[in-house]
Amino acid sequence: MESAIDTHLQCPRTLTRRAGEDYRPPFPVWVARAGEDVTQVVMGYLGVQYRGEEHRDTAFAVLRQIVDQFGLPDGPGTWDVTHHRDAAGADNLVAVGYWRDPGTYGRWLARPEVAGWWDADERLTGDVGVFREILSPRVDGFETLYPFTDRLPGVGGVMDGVSDEIEEHAYWGSMRDRIPRSQTDRMRPSGELTAQGGGGRVVVRGHDDLALIRSGQDWSDAGPEEHELYETEVEPALRAAMDFLRDRGQRLGCYSNRYVRYIDLDGTPLDKTYAISHWRSLDRLEQWAETHPTHLRVFVAFVSLARRFTTLRLYHEVSVVRADEQYYEYVNCHPATGLLRDATVPGPS
Amino acid sequence: MESAIDTHLQCPRTLTRRAGEDYRPPFPVWVARAGEDVTQVVMGYLGVQYRGEEHRDTAFAVLRQIVDQFGLPDGPGTWDVTHHRDAAGADNLVAVGYWRDPGTYGRWLARPEVAGWWDADERLTGDVGVFREILSPRVDGFETLYPFTDRLPGVGGVMDGVSDEIEEHAYWGSMRDRIPRSQTDRMRPSGELTAQGGGGRVVVRGHDDLALIRSGQDWSDAGPEEHELYETEVEPALRAAMDFLRDRGQRLGCYSNRYVRYIDLDGTPLDKTYAISHWRSLDRLEQWAETHPTHLRVFVAFVSLARRFTTLRLYHEVSVVRADEQYYEYVNCHPATGLLRDATVPGPS
Repeated sequence: MESAIDTHLQCPRTLTRRAGEDYRPPFPVWVARAGEDVTQVVMGYLGVQYRGEEHRDTAFAVLRQIVDQFGLPDGPGTWDVTHHRDAAGADNLVAVGYWRDPGTYGRWLARPEVAGWWDADERLTGDVGVFREILSPRVDGFETLYPFTDRLPGVGGVMDGVSDEIEEHAYWGSMRDRIPRSQTDRMRPSGELTAQGGGGRVVVRGHDDLALIRSGQDWSDAGPEEHELYETEVEPALRAAMDFLRDRGQRLGCYSNRYVRYIDLDGTPLDKTYAISHWRSLDRLEQWAETHPTHLRVFVAFVSLARRFTTLRLYHEVSVVRADEQYYEYVNCHPATGLLRDATVPGPS
Repeated sequence: MESAIDTHLQCPRTLTRRAGEDYRPPFPVWVARAGEDVTQVVMGYLGVQYRGEEHRDTAFAVLRQIVDQFGLPDGPGTWDVTHHRDAAGADNLVAVGYWRDPGTYGRWLARPEVAGWWDADERLTGDVGVFREILSPRVDGFETLYPFTDRLPGVGGVMDGVSDEIEEHAYWGSMRDRIPRSQTDRMRPSGELTAQGGGGRVVVRGHDDLALIRSGQDWSDAGPEEHELYETEVEPALRAAMDFLRDRGQRLGCYSNRYVRYIDLDGTPLDKTYAISHWRSLDRLEQWAETHPTHLRVFVAFVSLARRFTTLRLYHEVSVVRADEQYYEYVNCHPATGLLRDATVPGPS
C-alpha cells in the first residue's frame, strides 16, 4: 500500500490529508503512474456538432477527418470517440486524444493538416460545427482512480503503468487528497471564463484552478445478468444525475456536463460511457458529489449492489488546471456549447 | 458568521480544517455556547429494563424514582425520558440528565438517596434491571448543531445560549471540524471496552476517544401535512438505518445504537425521537455516516424534501471522551445491553 501521490511529487505538507495515517481503505484501488519525465499531459476534446439526421453523414465524415489527423506523426498516444445529445438538442461527436507531453502535442497541432484544417474558413460554414477543448494539466494537478490494473482508459492510456494499492480512497475528500498540489494548496479558483471573437469562431479563456472530471463506466465485459443489473438499477440514477447537472448545474458551479457514450466510427454505440464535466473549482465539484441527492442516489445504487458487479469497470480522472493550461474554441456551434454558455464577453475597458 | 469553535477554545492549528477560509455554508445553523466557567459537562443516561407487559408498571415506578432523584439538590439542569425496544426484545426506559459541571453531578451522585439506591442489593433482584451510562466530555471534546436557536434540547439545555451562524457545517467532516480538539488531534481511539464484576452487577470501562452521538428529530410542532411527510418519507429510512446499526453495526465500530422515542412519565409517546449511539471512534462514525447506503438514504430523503419541512427540528450533539470520562454500570440487565455487548472480560494476568 502506498500514497496515491507518487514519491517524486511528495513535498512537506502545509495542509493535512483528510485520512489519518492509520486509515486503511476497505477495498483496493490503483492509480496510473508515469516516469518523472512526464511533467504535463494534454487532453484534447475535439468535437463535431450537428442537428438533424440529414447532417449525420457529414458529421461522421468530419469526425473521421479528425481521427485521421490523430494518425499523423506526433498524434495522441490514445484516443476514444463518443456521442451525446446536448441540452439544446444538438448531436455531438467528440474524439478525445491524450498526449504524454505538450511538446508532442504542439508539434502535432502545428502541422498544416491540423492547424490549417482548424483555421480554414470552410469550418465557419456548412452544416456542422466543430469545437476543441484542450486542457494540459501538470502532473501535480491531476489524479486518476481505477479499481483495476489493465487496459487503463483515458489519461491512464498514456502513462507507464499502475501504482501499488493506494491509501487515499473510499472517503469524501480522497479525490483532493490524491492530487499532489493539495499538499500545500487549496486550489481556490480565480478569474472568470471569458469569450473572445465572433463571426462564428469564439475562443473561450479559462480561469485559474478550473476542475475537469472524466468519470467512466464500462459494462462491455458484463454477462447478461450483470448487464441487466447495471442498465436497470444503476444507469437510470446516473442518467438522472447527469441530466440534472447538464440542465441545472450552472448555479452549483458546473460549467458543462456531458454524459457521453462510446461509439465506433460508424456511430454504433458501445457499452461504455463517461461523464465529462467542467467545474468552477474542485470545491464545487466536491460539494455536488458529496451532498447532492442526485449524485448520492447513484452512489447508493452502486454501493448497495457492488458485490454483484464483477466485470463493471468504473474509473475517473480529475484535473485542476491553471488559466494558461486551457484553450477552448467553438466554430459554427450553438451559443450554449460547452464552456461557451457560461463565458462572459469582456466589456470595453 | 463565526467558527463553531468558541473563541476561548481556539488554538494554533496543527491540523487543517476541511472547509477553506472562504467557505460559506448554504443555510444557517447554530451551536450552543457556554461561558468559560463551563469546562466539562455530564451526560447521565439512566435506564430501566424490563420484559413483558406484566412488568411495565414496575418499570415505570422505577423510572419515576430516578426522575424523582433528578429533583434532589444538585440534580441535572435538564433531562428527558424515552422508550425503546432493544435487539434482544427487552423494553428500556431511559432518563437522561445533563449537568453543567462534574462537581454538581458528583455531589448529587454522592447523596444517599442516589448512591444508596444504585448500590442497594435490591437492584440485583426483581423484575427489572437498571443501568447507568455516564459520559463527562470536556468542552474541547464535544460539539452541537441546531438549525434553530430556541429551546435547545440535550446538552444545549445546560449551556448559556447560542452562537452566531457558524461556518463549519453542510459538508462531510464538519462534525470533526466543530470539535475544538480537532485543531491539533485526530482523536484516534486506544484501548478496549472491558467488563468487570459479576453477580448481576457489571461495570464497563471505556477506552480513550470513544465517540457518542445523540441525533434528534422533533416533529411535534408539525401540522398534519408535514407530520405525514415526515412519518412516510423520512422516518422509515431513518428507522431502517437505525435497525441496521443496532443489529449489524458492530463490525463497523458501533458498540450500541438506540433509536428512542420521548415519552411522558405514563409512557405516552411524544413526536420526538433521537438516536443515541456509541462508537469506537469519530473516524468510524464518520465512515458510516458518509458512505453507508442506509444512512445516505436518510440524508437523501431529508435533503430532497427539506424545503417542505418548516417546523421539523433536527439537531445533534457529538462527544469524544477519554477513558476516565466514562462510567457504565449494568445491574440485572441482559448481557447485550448497551456497551456490555462488546466489552471483553480481562483474562487472568
